[in-house]
Amino acid sequence: MSETYDPANIFAKILRGEIPSHRLHEDETAIVIMDVMPQSKGHCLVIPKAPSRNLLDVSDQTLVSIMPLVSRLARAAKAAFSADGVQIVQFNEAPAGQTVFHLHFHVSPRYAGVDLVPHSGKMADGAMLAEQADAIRAALRST
Amino acid sequence: MSETYDPANIFAKILRGEIPSHRLHEDETAIVIMDVMPQSKGHCLVIPKAPSRNLLDVSDQTLVSIMPLVSRLARAAKAAFSADGVQIVQFNEAPAGQTVFHLHFHVSPRYAGVDLVPHSGKMADGAMLAEQADAIRAALRST
Repeated sequence: MSETYDPANIFAKILRGEIPSHRLHEDETAIVIMDVMPQSKGHCLVIPKAPSRNLLDVSDQTLVSIMPLVSRLARAAKAAFSADGVQIVQFNEAPAGQTVFHLHFHVSPRYAGVDLVPHSGKMADGAMLAEQADAIRAALRST
Repeated sequence: MSETYDPANIFAKILRGEIPSHRLHEDETAIVIMDVMPQSKGHCLVIPKAPSRNLLDVSDQTLVSIMPLVSRLARAAKAAFSADGVQIVQFNEAPAGQTVFHLHFHVSPRYAGVDLVPHSGKMADGAMLAEQADAIRAALRST
């Protein structure tokens, strides 16, 4: 392991409540938040509470504890927006596309004929994200 | 669930030994094979033995059983090729990019400054894939 976990990363701050997020689910092991730079309608993130940088240093216990939530969220996000599919992506280290160094899984609903939006660096409208978070919350309750 | 599992898919045939693959690992719950249309050097796939179409219909038990192998393989593939990162992708349904309808996780080593190769539909050289499979096997033994 060449890299170490830095507790000053933005997801650690969100987990500690130091900065706000559109949090649509929380349980003992993880939170789910909206990605503030969504690549598709309903793009959200599963973030384990236990600290790890990514898949290269995560414990099996932490990884295994969050995966049922990833699949449940995939189903819920697809249902919430009548999406045609769902893409799961998880990046390890910057050359692979990782920008926040606390393990997270991207859950991006996909729509037929609609490409993913490239990362623009622009934050999405907060009211829109709040509305999408509500729709996924409702779908999670019925999945 | 709108879609059902079709046991005639190519990964089911590979699991049954009906068609060949570059198999670099097998245990009780999963196999690992080289992707024959690799998007990066060392691109391989984790395929559970239990049938499911994707994350939308998989059982928690099957999903949880293969994830430690996904992270172990990420570490091994990174080490085998001195990669700079690893990308994990999992597609659900065709509009999200899924082409074989048996659950699988893509593990793609990433290299600084090197983009992923777009899917060309062309099979990679078999000798090259066999060599890469050997390198990952060796790395798995020491991780």
